[in-house]
Amino acid sequence: MATARKRLTRDESQAQTRERILLAARAVVARNGFAGASVRDIAEEAGYSQGALYSNFSGKEPIMLELLRQHMREEAEQLQAIVKGSDGAASLDRLGTWAGTLNSEVDWSMLALELQLLAHRSPTFAADYDEVHEAHAKNLGQIVAEFYRSLGREPQLDPRELAAGCMALAHGLALQRRKDSEAPAGRLIMTFLGALLADAKPSESPGSEDRET
Amino acid sequence: MATARKRLTRDESQAQTRERILLAARAVVARNGFAGASVRDIAEEAGYSQGALYSNFSGKEPIMLELLRQHMREEAEQLQAIVKGSDGAASLDRLGTWAGTLNSEVDWSMLALELQLLAHRSPTFAADYDEVHEAHAKNLGQIVAEFYRSLGREPQLDPRELAAGCMALAHGLALQRRKDSEAPAGRLIMTFLGALLADAKPSESPGSEDRET
Repeated sequence: MATARKRLTRDESQAQTRERILLAARAVVARNGFAGASVRDIAEEAGYSQGALYSNFSGKEPIMLELLRQHMREEAEQLQAIVKGSDGAASLDRLGTWAGTLNSEVDWSMLALELQLLAHRSPTFAADYDEVHEAHAKNLGQIVAEFYRSLGREPQLDPRELAAGCMALAHGLALQRRKDSEAPAGRLIMTFLGALLADAKPSESPGSEDRET
Repeated sequence: MATARKRLTRDESQAQTRERILLAARAVVARNGFAGASVRDIAEEAGYSQGALYSNFSGKEPIMLELLRQHMREEAEQLQAIVKGSDGAASLDRLGTWAGTLNSEVDWSMLALELQLLAHRSPTFAADYDEVHEAHAKNLGQIVAEFYRSLGREPQLDPRELAAGCMALAHGLALQRRKDSEAPAGRLIMTFLGALLADAKPSESPGSEDRET
């Protein structure tokens, strides 16, 4: 019988619907790019009517913003794993490998950029976008701080600001890229980052908890 | 009589018309932003009919691209003057002052960015935009090379690529800025640039022409 299976609660069911829509959106974006991803295509890919989609998201922008938020979370987790539990030099190596694959799947920088531009035009959307952006800058800032610490160095600026600078660099480089060109973004970012780390002053009390107090 | 004054040649007259349209466009952009600058407003500001404007420019984009080209030329001249005929440390100081006033008049980074995004969507426009972008990256690359030389350092990468990285950083930071927020772009750019310069290896033959050969 239809009711024999365990029924999802209303909340679980809605969360599942949203997740399916987001998965579909990611597939459509991978295929057609952000500008070319329509709500109709996303609904079709997810197997829902446009009405059902609109009862979960108020339009294309909130879907894209949620995709970006998910991606940023994954990115922060990857970077956290790279920086954590390893000495600075090995982390820097692994970071270089990671940066070389940046945006190889979907060009997330371009999505961030398109949404940022939209935020410049719409104050309502800006509030939502800025929240997502700020959370990511803060997360990355903590990772930057931890990275400097593992190298026994003192950040030149507020780590959140350095992280925002790296985000800006990645977004600007994404804009310079053409579809048919090889992406030098990873190499350039690592050159800038490597210089920042090398130029940083030694910490006044490197690893103060581990050493003599 | 109307013919008593020195007549302009056809070419001179057309150049003057184009220059007036560009000046008007700059004024309109300063007032309304790029998105808000319409061909109608620009024609009105210049004192021409829209028809007269269209006989000089095929639309808004070519006007904006020409504005950007003019600005980039001015920027390269300013930077050239900062780097030239001074020791590296003094240049770095003056560069910091210059970076602090970046985009204080009109937000040129935002214009570059909007046109770059348009280039992502239109291959025809991409050809025009890429030409302007590439010329600027090349000019800035020469200035970067000269700057490293004046500090007796070896660039980490192709100077044109380093320059493109700085352009990307400035564009990405412009996107993060909100109208009502203070712009930390100059400070961040100088932090990144200062680190790059400090981290650069000494040249193998610093100022080879001036020293022992």
